[in-house]
Amino acid sequence: MSRLVDTVIAQAGAFLGDRITVNAALREQHSHGEDALPHAMPDAVAFPETADEISQLLALCHAHNVPVVPFGAGTSLEGHVTPVRGGITFDLSRMNAILEVNQDDMDCRVQPGVTRQQLNEHLRDQGLFFPVDPGSVCTIGGMCATRASGTAAVRYGTIRENVLGLTVALPDGRAIRTGGRVRKSATGYDLTHLFIGSEGTLGIITEITLKLHGIPESISSAVCQYDSMAGAVETVIAVMQAGIPVARIELIDDVQMGACIAYSKLEGLQAVPTLFLEFHGTPASVSEQAEQTEAIAVDFGGLGFRWAIDPAERAKLWQARHDAYWAALALKPGHRGMTTDAVVPISRLAEAILGVKEDIAASGLTAPLVGHVGDGNFHTIILVSDEPGAVERAFELDKKIVARALGLGGSASGEHGVGIGKRGFIEEEHGSEAIAVMRTLKSAIDPRGIMNPGKMFLN
Amino acid sequence: MSRLVDTVIAQAGAFLGDRITVNAALREQHSHGEDALPHAMPDAVAFPETADEISQLLALCHAHNVPVVPFGAGTSLEGHVTPVRGGITFDLSRMNAILEVNQDDMDCRVQPGVTRQQLNEHLRDQGLFFPVDPGSVCTIGGMCATRASGTAAVRYGTIRENVLGLTVALPDGRAIRTGGRVRKSATGYDLTHLFIGSEGTLGIITEITLKLHGIPESISSAVCQYDSMAGAVETVIAVMQAGIPVARIELIDDVQMGACIAYSKLEGLQAVPTLFLEFHGTPASVSEQAEQTEAIAVDFGGLGFRWAIDPAERAKLWQARHDAYWAALALKPGHRGMTTDAVVPISRLAEAILGVKEDIAASGLTAPLVGHVGDGNFHTIILVSDEPGAVERAFELDKKIVARALGLGGSASGEHGVGIGKRGFIEEEHGSEAIAVMRTLKSAIDPRGIMNPGKMFLN
Repeated sequence: MSRLVDTVIAQAGAFLGDRITVNAALREQHSHGEDALPHAMPDAVAFPETADEISQLLALCHAHNVPVVPFGAGTSLEGHVTPVRGGITFDLSRMNAILEVNQDDMDCRVQPGVTRQQLNEHLRDQGLFFPVDPGSVCTIGGMCATRASGTAAVRYGTIRENVLGLTVALPDGRAIRTGGRVRKSATGYDLTHLFIGSEGTLGIITEITLKLHGIPESISSAVCQYDSMAGAVETVIAVMQAGIPVARIELIDDVQMGACIAYSKLEGLQAVPTLFLEFHGTPASVSEQAEQTEAIAVDFGGLGFRWAIDPAERAKLWQARHDAYWAALALKPGHRGMTTDAVVPISRLAEAILGVKEDIAASGLTAPLVGHVGDGNFHTIILVSDEPGAVERAFELDKKIVARALGLGGSASGEHGVGIGKRGFIEEEHGSEAIAVMRTLKSAIDPRGIMNPGKMFLN
Repeated sequence: MSRLVDTVIAQAGAFLGDRITVNAALREQHSHGEDALPHAMPDAVAFPETADEISQLLALCHAHNVPVVPFGAGTSLEGHVTPVRGGITFDLSRMNAILEVNQDDMDCRVQPGVTRQQLNEHLRDQGLFFPVDPGSVCTIGGMCATRASGTAAVRYGTIRENVLGLTVALPDGRAIRTGGRVRKSATGYDLTHLFIGSEGTLGIITEITLKLHGIPESISSAVCQYDSMAGAVETVIAVMQAGIPVARIELIDDVQMGACIAYSKLEGLQAVPTLFLEFHGTPASVSEQAEQTEAIAVDFGGLGFRWAIDPAERAKLWQARHDAYWAALALKPGHRGMTTDAVVPISRLAEAILGVKEDIAASGLTAPLVGHVGDGNFHTIILVSDEPGAVERAFELDKKIVARALGLGGSASGEHGVGIGKRGFIEEEHGSEAIAVMRTLKSAIDPRGIMNPGKMFLN
């Protein structure tokens, strides 16, 4: 008996040729992200190269009720790209053209498969950069779909604040433009922000217009260590309240710091709670920001700034921060990492993090903690052995961390999204009526429910 | 024969008492905003005092298919508050409580009828302020509904960037919370931004959680005059590209400057294109920003900065800017003012403004020009006599200005919204498919079409 998906695959072959495939190795590659959730294979993987091909293939899937899963770089941590109901995975990695850079308006148009590294490489000569920096090698399309942020969001905003407009292919294949190139507009519903964070459940983003920023004239970085976690967190709160425009302010706990020192061969630093800071601006403004911040840090028990002014030393420091995940893994060879994600109002940050440290201790697990603390956002990297029950224990701790954040007026995810992993939390966070409205929107835009089914909402 | 609306009015009396009224004078007061469009009376005006009362009254209107028009301070410039199909106007002015201010998190919760002046008055002692400044005495709820911005948006963002969460009463009376107190979240569809700018067509905003900012340690203002409009506009573009965080950068053309000099008794200034600037920060940073900006201004033909450092002089300067509308009216006693609104990418600003100046000249009308030019946004104040055909000629010029902005990749409104006046432009701006999606959302959330009918969309 022939399946509907086979009809789609056969018909799509007419315009995609061998760029739609049922090859087992490729299907396996597209059966998971970087999460600890069960894998599931798509029936086929397509590699569209134009928005028109995406629209054509969507129209086919729509006509035959075949599930659609958009796939960028596959770095999702919450199961977004896992085709839990099979169907066609749309791998967007070949749509990686930088279409236009407008230096005068400091904006650009890119295809969804462009990575942030690729974009910044391209922009460097023009004195511009794209500031949203989640650490991983991810695509701009994926960042939009999950509402990503990262270390520089405290200064430059998340992806939400850095997208001016989108082109989106709707579930039935129709294409729409949202937003535009203007910095603000008061006309019509804000479709741009509806699709940002929609996790592939409403359509496929086929083009993005991004805000860019001028590369700062001066950049300096510093590290400040603390005897206590409370002192480090209180420093962050005070810096934010003082309105100092820090470019990055990252917290690394004692366990993670020990891991980073060993992994990245950092010298002269202790395995104690630590802030990594970066300042952007004119030379005078950077000096002033740094002086103000150091004064606050010392007030809260900071053991003084250690500067990394020259680019090589600065790069080494931030590379160590970006390698935190690998450093954590190196603590327990043979273990996997499960990254948690939660965010709280900044006034509750000390309480949240100290509580989470207790939860970790009570669990008996090793889980170094890092945080984009200027936004109230923090992660733990739970190290998971291959013993029976280990994954379940890790999920148990994850649940406790999220529950704690929600109890403090926070959100179940600061930047990794809902996907499969956080579906059980969003009703508590948003309330049943708001979830009902979200479902109403989902049904209105995707009446057949073909777009990334099994994500965002519990059935 | 009894009308459905009479049933609603009678039943609402049970819980609103005399706070629902058919008084002719009150209905007349609620028959228009500050626009030049035809007035229309509501059947009744309600003055709810709680979110529950709003929900109850909405449920009644929903049950009886009676139109609903939310009304804040009535300062709309595009007909948003005109009850073109009658029904009940919800006047939210009594819901003007400031519910909570969190100094540590720099946020607050307010009811929709709070004005920005009231909020800033309340916050002053706490060292905080709310930066979105459209000039008029408007309510926070109305600002959310129209996606307002104003003079400080170039630095602090529009209302869109300063709302963390909302409580909304849906057309059938159900209440939802959107967003929250966290600075970022990656869970669920962005309902907050769907309601911001929805112009009362999707629900009534009953509570707003706002971001606040620390009052800057130092503020200084300057005026810079130019021989040519092009020099002034090019200065703005260069300042934005240099990444100087100006707090305000306002353009006033020769005609408006003449009006302001006369009306506000400004001494030592000429009726030539002029920039009003404001810098916020530490004393050192303010000095540096001002020096950098002045150097750019002089490069583009600016005749040097005139400083207004002491608070009284600064207040006088910005009062003159805020009184631009009244100054313009004083140019032609007996005329009304019709304010236009358009926004373009900043690289097209010189072209747009110089073109609009030609359009004004060709029209034979007097229309001083002002602009929040750091965002690419500008307004003209068309002076309209009471002669027959005068309003039509003004609308003709308005149309030309918008068409010119759209032709340059701009938007039909930077901050005044669509309402009735701009309905004819949004399909050209967004494309028919995007408008179809907006209508789909409208139908999904307001299936009976009771919410502010006749606004945003052409029938």
